[in-house]
Amino acid sequence: MTNVSIITIGDELLIGQVIDSNSAWMAQELNKAGFRVKRRVAVGDVWEDIWKALDEESSMADVILITGGLGPTADDITKPLLCQYFGGKLVQDEAVLQNVTFLFEKIFKREVTPRNIKQAEVPDVCTVLQNKRGTAPGMLFHKEGKIFVSMPGVPHEMQGLMTEEVIPLIQKQFNPIHITHRTLLTFGIGESMLADLIQDFEEALPSNIKLAYLPNFGMVRLRLTASGNDQGAIDNLINQQFVELQQLVKEFLVTNEDDPMEKVLGKLLLQKNKTVATAESCTGGYIAHLLTSIAGSSAFYNGSIISYANKVKTDMLGVTENMLTNHGAVSEEVVVQMVKGVLQHIPTNYAIAVSGIMGPDGGTEDKPVGTVWIAVGNTQKQLTKKIHLRFNRQRNIHLTAVNALNMMRIFVLENE
Amino acid sequence: MTNVSIITIGDELLIGQVIDSNSAWMAQELNKAGFRVKRRVAVGDVWEDIWKALDEESSMADVILITGGLGPTADDITKPLLCQYFGGKLVQDEAVLQNVTFLFEKIFKREVTPRNIKQAEVPDVCTVLQNKRGTAPGMLFHKEGKIFVSMPGVPHEMQGLMTEEVIPLIQKQFNPIHITHRTLLTFGIGESMLADLIQDFEEALPSNIKLAYLPNFGMVRLRLTASGNDQGAIDNLINQQFVELQQLVKEFLVTNEDDPMEKVLGKLLLQKNKTVATAESCTGGYIAHLLTSIAGSSAFYNGSIISYANKVKTDMLGVTENMLTNHGAVSEEVVVQMVKGVLQHIPTNYAIAVSGIMGPDGGTEDKPVGTVWIAVGNTQKQLTKKIHLRFNRQRNIHLTAVNALNMMRIFVLENE
Repeated sequence: MTNVSIITIGDELLIGQVIDSNSAWMAQELNKAGFRVKRRVAVGDVWEDIWKALDEESSMADVILITGGLGPTADDITKPLLCQYFGGKLVQDEAVLQNVTFLFEKIFKREVTPRNIKQAEVPDVCTVLQNKRGTAPGMLFHKEGKIFVSMPGVPHEMQGLMTEEVIPLIQKQFNPIHITHRTLLTFGIGESMLADLIQDFEEALPSNIKLAYLPNFGMVRLRLTASGNDQGAIDNLINQQFVELQQLVKEFLVTNEDDPMEKVLGKLLLQKNKTVATAESCTGGYIAHLLTSIAGSSAFYNGSIISYANKVKTDMLGVTENMLTNHGAVSEEVVVQMVKGVLQHIPTNYAIAVSGIMGPDGGTEDKPVGTVWIAVGNTQKQLTKKIHLRFNRQRNIHLTAVNALNMMRIFVLENE
Repeated sequence: MTNVSIITIGDELLIGQVIDSNSAWMAQELNKAGFRVKRRVAVGDVWEDIWKALDEESSMADVILITGGLGPTADDITKPLLCQYFGGKLVQDEAVLQNVTFLFEKIFKREVTPRNIKQAEVPDVCTVLQNKRGTAPGMLFHKEGKIFVSMPGVPHEMQGLMTEEVIPLIQKQFNPIHITHRTLLTFGIGESMLADLIQDFEEALPSNIKLAYLPNFGMVRLRLTASGNDQGAIDNLINQQFVELQQLVKEFLVTNEDDPMEKVLGKLLLQKNKTVATAESCTGGYIAHLLTSIAGSSAFYNGSIISYANKVKTDMLGVTENMLTNHGAVSEEVVVQMVKGVLQHIPTNYAIAVSGIMGPDGGTEDKPVGTVWIAVGNTQKQLTKKIHLRFNRQRNIHLTAVNALNMMRIFVLENE
């Protein structure tokens, strides 16, 4: 199998100022294309650290993909280093210069500065990969049978270069093997109980199929991976096992595709030609955001009322002062009324309502931080649930959203 | 300076199924505590790859922090490997067993399985670090003057262990130096133009101060970093330079703290004792989510109306059929009315409204994907702007939100 190493360059990664989402995207695409990512390394903008990483990674991988360190500003040392590492000198590339000039004049509508023109300089020993989305070009190098590619770290620029240039090029050079993943999503069962449930299955798996447990936000994804040269045989084998696995976990199964919860609900609503709205207090629009992050969501989503303050709950959703006094804003009565209230205002079939205390402050003895009431339903019927979370604010918001989306999914399945 | 390497273990990172946010968090905390993260490496659940990473990273760093590979399921090989690497054998730890039992009985309210009891086994050559948040303990090892710590990969468990155990322990062992960062945020100027603007400043910087450019979502953060043993001297030096830097970029300066745009607006509103609401179409609740992700946001945020469908715009926000026919949903007229409409329903001082086409579909010749109208204002006055984005859906949603929050910030500053 052809091994790939990813090297990410930039001090910002080592002081934690940005999260590296590039590597995950690259790994996904490489996997689909039949390559195995063996290692990922992040180093700072330090000459000897970058140099050492190039040496090390090329001793372990056939393809070394480098991102970052190519911006227009002076903290970047990658290009001179690559020049020296591969034994070339910097020369101006006519096509890159044209691209830089075009981007500034036509797209950014700003003047080209000498600093930008300098970006058109590339080592004369590289193959230039045109970057249509930005000023820093991709650069491909060969050394001792290995391929090295340097790309800018800006995600959409790197993604364009990978899809249009890098992956087709390395596929031509190497013979990628076939890798197949099948992933399912479970809800409501912990990792260790799941492991007990499928222990016999796991022990009987053929040796070329690997099972992984991926717990995340109260859900566990199970992933089967098979690899080999004969695509048909691999696919057949993994499909058989995947059918069996679904059967074993069917009580907890959310989807047999690698989709997040919001997409599972979105697809279900689309299929039934129904729509959903949200009335959110503690999640402050996060459920609406998850639903609308899906392309084409206007087919199953019309709108929401975010009732963070009690005044919005009473003015817009028909929650009464009485309910607030007797039960509190975080109560079954209030979330049920929020469902009914939003259904009166927004043309939709179903609604989700949440009210809770996300922390770090706002808890009471009766209702500590992490107390959440959820209601889902339609005008006739509502399903409710109280959950207790015990994490930080971001995680509480996310877990509330996932729980609410799953309840809505079950309600839609059971109440057509 | 004491160098730290972070090793992340797990196939899921190398096939791109999860994004590694742990490393960024760890790096931030280590930096604050006076340690330098030199490298970050991710390897799969492969015995020889993990072993090699331990060898390599300990040749370059004084502290090696390992996350992942400690779940209760069979795909984990880390614990036996650590046993062999450090020359110990697995023994049951009474305190860990008590913690596991406590968590299952009192918190998870599930039965303890033999698999969970097995998690109480640790190498007899390690110091156990109690994990109050989960079943997998932290484990600290010494070898040849280096410290190794293995932690579970679940973010909130790792964070608890780092804050309460690991950082205090390594601070006691080493003498961390003082590291100070000062970060400011600019909006409306590209990286290269910014570099030209502050070129003289950058060239004149003392050699122990480093400047970094961190472009992200149409904004550029500038970060000064100084390190040394004398905290007072370092702080004085960097503060002088930081004042000068702020002066140079003042036209584009959003904040002189390391805060995201939503927090800058939130702080401003708090300070002026004002509140904001949103009327969101294309961002589908994302602006509301950003604002409510801030702890204590109920002091400046009451609620929102998410009007994804035109019917919600007309029914709830006073947008007329006439406006939609003559100007379209993505128009100045419509976003101005959305501001006015939401101010009528929600008790608030200011409102933000956005309407646009986020893609990948829905564009027309007149209004291609990426066309967005933004309005911000109060009942008396509204400020509007049309922007053109050219990215993918997620990025378009994020950029729209940042632009809208910045416009609101400027409006609040100029219209008290």
